[in-house]
Amino acid sequence: MQIFTRKHDDSIAAWGESRFLERIRQWLGDVAPPAPSGMGDDCSMTPLDGSNLLTTDSLIHGRHFDDALPAQMAAAKLINRNVSDIAAMGGTCQYALLAGCFPGHTAQAWMEAFVRGIAEAARKQDIRVLGGDLAETREEWMATLTLVGRAEQPLLRTGGAADDSLWVTGALGGSQLGRHASFEPRVREGQFLAASGEVKAAMDLSDGLAKDLPALLSGDLRAELELDRIPIHPDADAYSRQTGRPTLEHAFMDGEDYELLFVLDGRTDPTDWEARWRTALATPVQRIGHLTSGDGKAHVVNAADKSPLDWSHGFQHFQ
Amino acid sequence: MQIFTRKHDDSIAAWGESRFLERIRQWLGDVAPPAPSGMGDDCSMTPLDGSNLLTTDSLIHGRHFDDALPAQMAAAKLINRNVSDIAAMGGTCQYALLAGCFPGHTAQAWMEAFVRGIAEAARKQDIRVLGGDLAETREEWMATLTLVGRAEQPLLRTGGAADDSLWVTGALGGSQLGRHASFEPRVREGQFLAASGEVKAAMDLSDGLAKDLPALLSGDLRAELELDRIPIHPDADAYSRQTGRPTLEHAFMDGEDYELLFVLDGRTDPTDWEARWRTALATPVQRIGHLTSGDGKAHVVNAADKSPLDWSHGFQHFQ
Repeated sequence: MQIFTRKHDDSIAAWGESRFLERIRQWLGDVAPPAPSGMGDDCSMTPLDGSNLLTTDSLIHGRHFDDALPAQMAAAKLINRNVSDIAAMGGTCQYALLAGCFPGHTAQAWMEAFVRGIAEAARKQDIRVLGGDLAETREEWMATLTLVGRAEQPLLRTGGAADDSLWVTGALGGSQLGRHASFEPRVREGQFLAASGEVKAAMDLSDGLAKDLPALLSGDLRAELELDRIPIHPDADAYSRQTGRPTLEHAFMDGEDYELLFVLDGRTDPTDWEARWRTALATPVQRIGHLTSGDGKAHVVNAADKSPLDWSHGFQHFQ
Repeated sequence: MQIFTRKHDDSIAAWGESRFLERIRQWLGDVAPPAPSGMGDDCSMTPLDGSNLLTTDSLIHGRHFDDALPAQMAAAKLINRNVSDIAAMGGTCQYALLAGCFPGHTAQAWMEAFVRGIAEAARKQDIRVLGGDLAETREEWMATLTLVGRAEQPLLRTGGAADDSLWVTGALGGSQLGRHASFEPRVREGQFLAASGEVKAAMDLSDGLAKDLPALLSGDLRAELELDRIPIHPDADAYSRQTGRPTLEHAFMDGEDYELLFVLDGRTDPTDWEARWRTALATPVQRIGHLTSGDGKAHVVNAADKSPLDWSHGFQHFQ
């Protein structure tokens, strides 16, 4: 299904704003409560007592997805990119606002599939879509979701120290082959980490291990990675055969893994920890290295020979 | 100053994302608290106890502003459009998230003026900018702001009844001549209304009185307007001379007034009320009509002869 149409009758422009809004409300169904909590007033009015997490993320046609992706998967990607940020802090999701910037020639059928996809993905995470905004662009299509959540004991990115170990959930690389839009955000895993009391920092991997990892290295911390322990996704192998670039590079650089990277207290026995994880969760988890005091130079090194790891930047927007 | 540049060295693409983010942090200055409350973690982490208002609004180059508008005024417009929604419910603003979807050829200098403008406008309303998102478009420039606020006794749109009177702050029409981007959101006015205990409903006028008023008319309520009492802005007169359309049409249809429209309890004496308003506030306020039980047909009529008012639609996006 194409996102844009040349036939005016099939376009959202043919509806006008009021009827478009009515339909959005209908497609969202039970995930959109009535005003004043939901759509229909100047603001959504919901007691946010206990809420403490706020995040926002956009989804742009031609950048984060293209016409090859079904509309409902684009919707799931928008929801789940934001959910992944809440998951990284060990939180649960509560409320969302959706701001759409769409051209008038967006196809009605695509739009319906997208909004129904938003409802479906929101329902899975028990998210209520409280409101939003509609505005018209000339050509480009994008939507911005803001998500509110809560975490009793939030996991921050900072908090790691020398001798703590570094772990990652799942496997990395090759998300472009499809996982970028079909991943399962690691909500239960994040909550498990936050509740454990032994995890000192966490984040989600959205731009790739190479670019994201430094965010855990506050002060002069250094990460020593055991390269043979990096969990490689089969898609990274497949993608590597297409690109001719090393599999490990894909695991470090591709981004959009939406796995959790976390720091376990150095006093915790890794084997015990892994056993406890496996009792609670089916998701694979892997120790990939540890933190040491840095020398102010290389922040990420190969644990084997202490050589700096080359892939100092993952995917950088705007370059 | 132009929003886009052809010189790569002057563009945000020349910075790359990390340096762009550093600069945003610097330009925002004191309105951007450090992580984990502000930028730098997966979510912004802030206790939202007491918060109960959420709103989001986008600003698109070519639609909500053009190159003739200074960047800092575009920024003020984005902040204040959202603030106006909080004001309409009688609230105070607290936190904002900013999601930018910008093309790489956005000019650095324009971007700096814009973000400094965000900081300045946020500071005026005591808003902290906690975080956001950056994503790259091909050609179009837009930003979406999400605002969190609180209201002890929020004013909803619904709540009016027959015999209540209809009021509006300020004066209407001709906002295109400049006020659309330089208005002062009616925060103190909204708080006064909410605290009074005699105001039963309120909303802000963003799409124009003609389109917005029906949102106050729940059930079978009808609005009877005294057309000679509609406060006409001098800009509506000036604009009318340019367009040849009636001044009153501009007052009803232009939109972007960002004034408050509210419903006063029918038992309150209008003269007393106006006197109390004037003691507290310098902003003009005007009674423009009253509510009656409707006949299920015309929702907005001329009080003089009960004829339906023609301008049944204000500015409709997507048409």
